[in-house]
Amino acid sequence: MSFSIERSIEILERTPLVLKQLLSGLPEHWTGVNEGPETWSPYDVIGHLIHGETTDWTKRMDIILSDGGNKEFATFDRFAQFQESKGKSLEQLLNTFHDERKSNITYLLSKNISKTDLQKTGIHPKFGKVTLQQLLSTWVAHDLDHIMQISRVMAKQYREDVGPWKEYLKIMQ
Amino acid sequence: MSFSIERSIEILERTPLVLKQLLSGLPEHWTGVNEGPETWSPYDVIGHLIHGETTDWTKRMDIILSDGGNKEFATFDRFAQFQESKGKSLEQLLNTFHDERKSNITYLLSKNISKTDLQKTGIHPKFGKVTLQQLLSTWVAHDLDHIMQISRVMAKQYREDVGPWKEYLKIMQ
Repeated sequence: MSFSIERSIEILERTPLVLKQLLSGLPEHWTGVNEGPETWSPYDVIGHLIHGETTDWTKRMDIILSDGGNKEFATFDRFAQFQESKGKSLEQLLNTFHDERKSNITYLLSKNISKTDLQKTGIHPKFGKVTLQQLLSTWVAHDLDHIMQISRVMAKQYREDVGPWKEYLKIMQ
Repeated sequence: MSFSIERSIEILERTPLVLKQLLSGLPEHWTGVNEGPETWSPYDVIGHLIHGETTDWTKRMDIILSDGGNKEFATFDRFAQFQESKGKSLEQLLNTFHDERKSNITYLLSKNISKTDLQKTGIHPKFGKVTLQQLLSTWVAHDLDHIMQISRVMAKQYREDVGPWKEYLKIMQ
């Protein structure tokens, strides 16, 4: 399969609903736990996804699509959620992510991105020149990466309980 | 966190709904693709989960809880779905998984499993003696393992498209 805006939106639009189905109403013994020091809980991940919506994906798209000027992306703060999520319930975060994603998809569609636009570039703080197609593909893959992470964090709560089956469960490795 | 029946059901009951939200209505360019030879598509995985519901988890629970008799589990057929899913749409499979899971949870609850029951054992074809608690924990972790797998299979369709970001995406490794 090859990249397309349409195919990307098929995933981007359902991620907030998948995460609601996976986490909404679930007690903290599943949503507030992590994989050990310096790792994130499902709650932390939702805050991280919100930060991406509000400061990263569409902002970087704008930089790439803008005519001239500074093409350098701001560095993404991977720890912003530890401040920004404070005092907010998981339900609030899930709803915020849903709303932010919805307006970002509307914004993406409003740009009527062409094949030529997809090859336009910006400057990533580490990777240097990257294309809009790479940015949008990463937006999609990043969603799936975090669905994977949340599943793994939750499964690991039963790491000892599964006994010998650990060997058959990739998620425990 | 430690294992409990209640905590396990919190996950078991939502897995079919999560998978519907993730896959229902999604085109085959996401659901019918895999990670290469000998790997499974999201469509294949749902068939595998159905086979687990109808032939494995509760059947093994019954063996463990039965008084005396043969305590050996039948070998689980990891390839049954390639026959059993034939001619069925993904929507049909998602609905079947949902229904089978629902009745299995009802069945599980009807057993009023005690702490003593959880330590009862059966004989796994490879691992030998395993407890009911290990079996039920694995049922939960196995769900999450396959949500992880489906996310990974879909993300990998953009493996080349993400360009240098591959380095930041665990899901691509």
